[in-house]
Amino acid sequence: MTHPAVRIDINADLGEGFGVWRLGDDEAMLDIVSSANVACGFHAGDPLIMRRTCAEAVGRGVRIGAQVAYRDLPGFGRRPMDVAADELAAEVLYQLAALDGVARAEGGRVRYVKPHGALYNRIVRDREQAAGVVGAVAAYNAAHGVALPLLTLATSAAAEVGAAAGVLTVGECFADRAYTPEATLVPRDRPGAVIEDPEEVAARAVRMAAEGRVRAVDGTDVAVDARSMCVHGDTPGAVALARSVRAALVEAGVTVEAFA
Amino acid sequence: MTHPAVRIDINADLGEGFGVWRLGDDEAMLDIVSSANVACGFHAGDPLIMRRTCAEAVGRGVRIGAQVAYRDLPGFGRRPMDVAADELAAEVLYQLAALDGVARAEGGRVRYVKPHGALYNRIVRDREQAAGVVGAVAAYNAAHGVALPLLTLATSAAAEVGAAAGVLTVGECFADRAYTPEATLVPRDRPGAVIEDPEEVAARAVRMAAEGRVRAVDGTDVAVDARSMCVHGDTPGAVALARSVRAALVEAGVTVEAFA
Amino acid sequence: MTHPAVRIDINADLGEGFGVWRLGDDEAMLDIVSSANVACGFHAGDPLIMRRTCAEAVGRGVRIGAQVAYRDLPGFGRRPMDVAADELAAEVLYQLAALDGVARAEGGRVRYVKPHGALYNRIVRDREQAAGVVGAVAAYNAAHGVALPLLTLATSAAAEVGAAAGVLTVGECFADRAYTPEATLVPRDRPGAVIEDPEEVAARAVRMAAEGRVRAVDGTDVAVDARSMCVHGDTPGAVALARSVRAALVEAGVTVEAFA
Amino acid sequence: MTHPAVRIDINADLGEGFGVWRLGDDEAMLDIVSSANVACGFHAGDPLIMRRTCAEAVGRGVRIGAQVAYRDLPGFGRRPMDVAADELAAEVLYQLAALDGVARAEGGRVRYVKPHGALYNRIVRDREQAAGVVGAVAAYNAAHGVALPLLTLATSAAAEVGAAAGVLTVGECFADRAYTPEATLVPRDRPGAVIEDPEEVAARAVRMAAEGRVRAVDGTDVAVDARSMCVHGDTPGAVALARSVRAALVEAGVTVEAFA
Repeated sequence: MTHPAVRIDINADLGEGFGVWRLGDDEAMLDIVSSANVACGFHAGDPLIMRRTCAEAVGRGVRIGAQVAYRDLPGFGRRPMDVAADELAAEVLYQLAALDGVARAEGGRVRYVKPHGALYNRIVRDREQAAGVVGAVAAYNAAHGVALPLLTLATSAAAEVGAAAGVLTVGECFADRAYTPEATLVPRDRPGAVIEDPEEVAARAVRMAAEGRVRAVDGTDVAVDARSMCVHGDTPGAVALARSVRAALVEAGVTVEAFA
Repeated sequence: MTHPAVRIDINADLGEGFGVWRLGDDEAMLDIVSSANVACGFHAGDPLIMRRTCAEAVGRGVRIGAQVAYRDLPGFGRRPMDVAADELAAEVLYQLAALDGVARAEGGRVRYVKPHGALYNRIVRDREQAAGVVGAVAAYNAAHGVALPLLTLATSAAAEVGAAAGVLTVGECFADRAYTPEATLVPRDRPGAVIEDPEEVAARAVRMAAEGRVRAVDGTDVAVDARSMCVHGDTPGAVALARSVRAALVEAGVTVEAFA
Repeated sequence: MTHPAVRIDINADLGEGFGVWRLGDDEAMLDIVSSANVACGFHAGDPLIMRRTCAEAVGRGVRIGAQVAYRDLPGFGRRPMDVAADELAAEVLYQLAALDGVARAEGGRVRYVKPHGALYNRIVRDREQAAGVVGAVAAYNAAHGVALPLLTLATSAAAEVGAAAGVLTVGECFADRAYTPEATLVPRDRPGAVIEDPEEVAARAVRMAAEGRVRAVDGTDVAVDARSMCVHGDTPGAVALARSVRAALVEAGVTVEAFA
Repeated sequence: MTHPAVRIDINADLGEGFGVWRLGDDEAMLDIVSSANVACGFHAGDPLIMRRTCAEAVGRGVRIGAQVAYRDLPGFGRRPMDVAADELAAEVLYQLAALDGVARAEGGRVRYVKPHGALYNRIVRDREQAAGVVGAVAAYNAAHGVALPLLTLATSAAAEVGAAAGVLTVGECFADRAYTPEATLVPRDRPGAVIEDPEEVAARAVRMAAEGRVRAVDGTDVAVDARSMCVHGDTPGAVALARSVRAALVEAGVTVEAFA
């Protein structure tokens, strides 16, 4: 049914422990995803966790992305913060460089940048903070002769600012989140924002990957421009759900493959 | 009097502020030193301060070194800590990579690694922690095709461990510190550990640079194997003292020149 | 000229160092103010600095206030943060209790609470965060049988929420800040927001204390309801300015006296 | 068989999460213990977790102790640190006061102080750091008119220093740890340091509580002076083990009862 050439990446947040604390089942998720968004120490992650996560990702051929965030361990990077663009750029550059150094010591390297939590949401609309993030990636790319893309919503201030600065944006979609008619996510605090029925999640995932379309909350059918699909591993049942999404994609003939 | 080919590097700790706080007069010190040990965020320094410090160093042709430290902002990295070797290695790798990324975005790069404070002292004798630091530098060097040396005492566990692992150690001396007959520093809490008379400091600096010798506290004359001389910028009078040391070296025909 | 019974408190932020870092000249300011807003460790301050600052304040009869803040050392509490009310309440309670314990060990005690930086500004308008701060103070007051007031703008969401919860608000004014016709402060990033002429500052201070009025930026005369006047000690010239404000007040017959 | 008047307290470390992270099953443990050592934010715990943990403890009649620690979130307070006595005293005072304020807002109060991890072990032998901890408790006691005891090994530098300063020490024992012939704990990194057989653990617990004796690793029988027994809740199987220890104590006629 599905065209054999259809490909999608599966990404998830990994390495989100700190010190003695852990979050989610990284081992299990690494067998499901093709791309690992590795926390860089600002919202979660410490150097040793980062190094071990990178080693495990490299060992399984999973691509490594820098999950850059606001500097906020107590709030897990989930609290919107007013950070000046130059400070934010320096912070993103620091995190990206640190993870890349750790990844290279383990035989890998950072392939993309995915902002985390409140920063992810902020740069969908805030051009100043988007410029901070994009500026950091552009500076890193120029200095290292690479072209790391930004993984975020295809339609966003970050994508616009990135296009102008030569930083590519790769769009992502979410298997278990409800969409508005404008193809943005229904905010988490609204009823129905997260879809919990495993079969529905799997069916939506397959359709987004294969057809690039999803049914919005008002029943209309909207286009989703995504080369990667985000799954979660830090809630009860999340690993099983992610596993079933991957199985459904494979079953439907979609090739699960890293984008970077 | 002095052989014209005699060269010495002058290094100092820079970028040791954090957030709104500052320490020392970085502007003034950058006109005196040939190498800047830039704090990497674990004992001092934040990404924006690191970036600005690197930009200023690059603009003046001052070499950048990674001043790696224990993770201890409240204690400024001055408190001995029992950190396991693998954790220490990951922490040093993280700091080194972060600073190098920041430096490269400003057109420079990290040229050497100088452990800070309690870590500096610890790896003079502690082979396990020395192995952690050396392992991080070795891994970074291998992954990036560079050969960053370690700036520390010429005679130390770190130098021995480094030699075995292919990490070069560059010896340093201290213009204003008293030496034991074994050519180690008199601990700071002993009387006379710090020499305060500017003329004496300048004279000792010239002799260490030109002859590689210094008078120890017992009156004996000891050899000091140093390619770099450490000066301080964070105490009252420190900048003036550092400036007079540099002037005395130049006056004596010693070439002040970065080692890396 | 001035009615002999006119009294005003002078408050300033103190103890705003961290670890090796210092900010402002606490020694000098303690001779000028009648109330010290002591940082509690979340935006600045560490336990030892807090203890020493309290000891010095107690020794001079200066009242101690808890300068509670967002948990943000890197941003010095100056960045607006979306913190949930229950989390903010717990954070304020923690800071207030910690400082009170430290102050009591030095023979003093906390007499009032003054939110710092972005939190100060936020609760002028944000009722949810105001409720968090007020809730913490109300809980502390009830548990300890005290009636600590909140030092903030007399007209604010915090004052309203406080009134409903039985937490008294004490209004403050600023000697060196420009006022809008609505008696609020001109934001710092606007031109003319900070008045720098020492004579003008002193004259405005005297008029606010003695008459309760100040000239706004549009030339109108507005009422300022303040029992305390805030001065700063952390910028060049600030100590001299604060000293001249106090001298002008005393000269005009205003009694400088703590409010709590 | 057991004398009916025999009583023992059961204590465990609780509230050791941070931000989004959790450690152990606090809910389950609160039904087992009579005393909760609540983390105070320096090695674990944040204000909101502290407040919720106190509320739950108060609701169940479980006593609250201040689990004070080195300032080391990344290392969970498990790394020995050289902290000067005055700094340590201020840090302990800060933590103790903060938790007491939070506990009082929930209708409870701190009843005792139990140092955590590396600090616990350090003050068994280090008189200077013991003096720091004891000094903080003594100062708190004096200022608040209370007599909080220190929960630690009955034979320790802390107990000696405490006795001289008027701070009572309450001895504790460990159900699942091996003892040396000197009645100290076999270090964790030695084989056999932790006893894992549930029946053996329960039997030892009963004997320590009822007879005040335990079999040491060399087969000799040693006296254990303990009014409280420590159990753990943060490893797999720990809750079940703790529950069986309590059941065995009750079965043997020992009264499980808080000491403070």
